[in-house]
Amino acid sequence: MASAPPEPISISLGDPAGIGPEVLAKCWDNRSVFNLPAFVAIGDPRSVEAVWDGPIELITDPREADSAFDVGLPMIQLSAPDPDVPGHPSVAGAHCSLDSLEIAVGLARSGSASAVVTGPVSKEQLYAIGFAHPGQTEFVAERCGVASTNVAMMLAGPTLRTIPVTTHVALADVHGKLNSGLIEARARAVLRGLQRNFGIEEPRLAIAGLNPHSGEGGALGHEEIEIIQPAIATLADEGWRVTGPHPADTMFHTAARARYDAALCMYHDQALIPVKALHFEDAVNVTLGLPIIRTAPDHGTAFDIAGQDRADPRPMAAAIRMAAECAAHRAASA
Amino acid sequence: MASAPPEPISISLGDPAGIGPEVLAKCWDNRSVFNLPAFVAIGDPRSVEAVWDGPIELITDPREADSAFDVGLPMIQLSAPDPDVPGHPSVAGAHCSLDSLEIAVGLARSGSASAVVTGPVSKEQLYAIGFAHPGQTEFVAERCGVASTNVAMMLAGPTLRTIPVTTHVALADVHGKLNSGLIEARARAVLRGLQRNFGIEEPRLAIAGLNPHSGEGGALGHEEIEIIQPAIATLADEGWRVTGPHPADTMFHTAARARYDAALCMYHDQALIPVKALHFEDAVNVTLGLPIIRTAPDHGTAFDIAGQDRADPRPMAAAIRMAAECAAHRAASA
Repeated sequence: MASAPPEPISISLGDPAGIGPEVLAKCWDNRSVFNLPAFVAIGDPRSVEAVWDGPIELITDPREADSAFDVGLPMIQLSAPDPDVPGHPSVAGAHCSLDSLEIAVGLARSGSASAVVTGPVSKEQLYAIGFAHPGQTEFVAERCGVASTNVAMMLAGPTLRTIPVTTHVALADVHGKLNSGLIEARARAVLRGLQRNFGIEEPRLAIAGLNPHSGEGGALGHEEIEIIQPAIATLADEGWRVTGPHPADTMFHTAARARYDAALCMYHDQALIPVKALHFEDAVNVTLGLPIIRTAPDHGTAFDIAGQDRADPRPMAAAIRMAAECAAHRAASA
Repeated sequence: MASAPPEPISISLGDPAGIGPEVLAKCWDNRSVFNLPAFVAIGDPRSVEAVWDGPIELITDPREADSAFDVGLPMIQLSAPDPDVPGHPSVAGAHCSLDSLEIAVGLARSGSASAVVTGPVSKEQLYAIGFAHPGQTEFVAERCGVASTNVAMMLAGPTLRTIPVTTHVALADVHGKLNSGLIEARARAVLRGLQRNFGIEEPRLAIAGLNPHSGEGGALGHEEIEIIQPAIATLADEGWRVTGPHPADTMFHTAARARYDAALCMYHDQALIPVKALHFEDAVNVTLGLPIIRTAPDHGTAFDIAGQDRADPRPMAAAIRMAAECAAHRAASA
């Protein structure tokens, strides 16, 4: 008897009026070029048909995805009352995107999928239907029973992985949100994630300072001395390979990047500027600290170009590929 | 009668115990490979001899630099009481570095040099001998009779030029230092500098937001609405091609960089992270808003590796080349 096919990757389509359906269809079209494993999309097939002429294979069990994948884009069908027009989001579409997320995550939690990739949603639309989480990451964390402080959002490109300690916070409020415990919690999520998802046995984490020149010994800010250095000392005491606080402007050139596996940054743009400057087309959002593997392309719904055949599928392809690589690392160590 | 040779570039050696002498000597050694024009170094020749076996041509008039340049490294001699040992800075060396800066700037101001390139100094050493400016940039501005708010520090690499509005300020204090007038003053210095020094007739300036996602319409901070947008409106009314405020994390990828000639950033690391990530070896510090041309390599004295033949001359070579290019643009439009 042949061995059972591996579980596919489950993918939520995201907002049906955004570019999610288009980039996913383009990923299936280019599955050989992009070197993609079998996946199954969860959503309303009509939102894909609105932007794509290719074949769709409706399935009901993820185990069918592997054989269906050669024939058409495997989908588990969700119906919205009315199909959305690309570029014109609706309440029905928001419900559809939330149902899609719920099912895609559920398949990964139950083991029917090896990982989940989440398509782009509109937070504004989700908030309008009562979605109470800041974003998809916190929703996924809650469904997995993990406190959101214990997960970390990593942006991973081919030569650089960064993680912000604080995320969607006004710059003036960043220093007030930082504390040693939060830095330590994020760092542990990252370090364990690098071990489990990326197969790095002794991960090296570089930790950034907050201020220019990392505070210059206190002349340009005290957070390095009072908050960041104690966190680094605690993590080092636990046996982790951590360095810093490093001046952020000299952390991200080629030679510096070779010295660590990931960089923990103090705020949103400190983490995202370098990765997006270097790897805009293939940076992947990876959530660490979860019992499941979750990745996402690092772009939004792009309603302004939806339905115009202009969306770039490379970020979604990179997210699918990275999910598969993480699943392989976990399977190898299981 | 043959036409007079062009004025050379005057270069201050910087701290004699730092890597300034070494990188300058290596620049002369590799003047053909680096495609460098004639320059004259101002400093103590013994600090060069301590790290280099090549020929030095002592001159007294910058006009001799052009013919001397083929024979040896042209230098205008300054004597410190005792020669410094590489890696061991001294008070005498600090005086020497300040004299060198004073003379190099004076040559450019008098028109005897076409531009000035400043070698790395130790601020700590300079402060110890009573230097009252935050850095060399402010010193040069004062010598040129320009208020330091009307100059701008640009970091320029082959595909990206950025300018911080605030510089050496703790991150928590950045929002308090920002105001529309300061943004406008820096922007004008940059726009005029792009015209005069870089020959760009209608320069395009992209202006960054302060907060993540440029504040998301006020949800993540109000500085964009209250400070940055009004400054952009004023600059646009004056006829400048300015855009923004742009989310900083999506401003610096390849396609985005093609849409502007320079990016005005709100704080030190927002400006320096992307340039150094992309162009660590050849980013040049250019001061705009001055009557003279001034560039500098973007590194410090590196006392820890001075005298070990390990210093990389490429940043100094890039600074000399860019000074020459700016001088050519000014000469063409004179």
